[in-house]
Amino acid sequence: MMPILSTLCYIQRGGQYLMLYRNAKKNDLNAGKWIGVGGKFEDGESPEDCLRREVLEETGLSLTRFAFRGIVTFVSDESPTEYMHLFTADGFEGELTCCDEGTLAWQSMDRLEQLPMWVGDRVFLRLLAQNAPFFSLKLVYQGSKLVQAWLNGQKMPL
Amino acid sequence: MMPILSTLCYIQRGGQYLMLYRNAKKNDLNAGKWIGVGGKFEDGESPEDCLRREVLEETGLSLTRFAFRGIVTFVSDESPTEYMHLFTADGFEGELTCCDEGTLAWQSMDRLEQLPMWVGDRVFLRLLAQNAPFFSLKLVYQGSKLVQAWLNGQKMPL
Repeated sequence: MMPILSTLCYIQRGGQYLMLYRNAKKNDLNAGKWIGVGGKFEDGESPEDCLRREVLEETGLSLTRFAFRGIVTFVSDESPTEYMHLFTADGFEGELTCCDEGTLAWQSMDRLEQLPMWVGDRVFLRLLAQNAPFFSLKLVYQGSKLVQAWLNGQKMPL
Repeated sequence: MMPILSTLCYIQRGGQYLMLYRNAKKNDLNAGKWIGVGGKFEDGESPEDCLRREVLEETGLSLTRFAFRGIVTFVSDESPTEYMHLFTADGFEGELTCCDEGTLAWQSMDRLEQLPMWVGDRVFLRLLAQNAPFFSLKLVYQGSKLVQAWLNGQKMPL
């Protein structure tokens, strides 16, 4: 089975992250959830190439400063393995546009816990909030249930 | 085209790296070159899962301490895009065995420049030697000629 390679970016402005409420695409695995912006690699793209292209396409913003924060390996009994390259960005140019995949909104970083999202996303959002050094996180799902999490090769309590 | 996901590990002992001289496999892209140990991801593996399995298979060693140092995106006009997950390790258990892909030898880190290897490998070996923070390096080859290198999204002089 062909793995999926993707990027996810949390663009930061003050104490807020730019979040995408997925409510526009049909058959969207992420429907009804808030996530960062990003998407799948195209052939020959580095993580940064994909990051810049996807952020521009989805938000109209050009990133001027970003940091590669971690890799998340998603394993699921319902979909192919995905390697998600996680970035934060705190420098950008341009005007925010509409995204055809959902609604973009600046959300307070203090209130992310209240937004509907994948359980595992809260794990890496906490690592980002703790300013963890570059990490490799493996999340194993059965359906929408997170059944295992491994941080840098060590099993995490759930 | 399906991308290749792989790991490469430089196991360190004192001032030496465990290097593999590729002289055993037929049609080996790396024939005649010295590289670290590693190999391709199997389905559902995280970078660390692949690292541990490949190092054990190729060397007989079980890693007890390792660090994820960077991702290298190889783009070539002759082969599929490869995302190589680069590790160093300085803790291991077990006895060194033979590797069916070539000859394993401890090589002084000071003398790596004298060994035949890919031009781009010298770029990331220098980053490791400089103790660079986690990096994303994109290397673009035409045949065996390195034509572009990008570090964390910024073009490098060649």
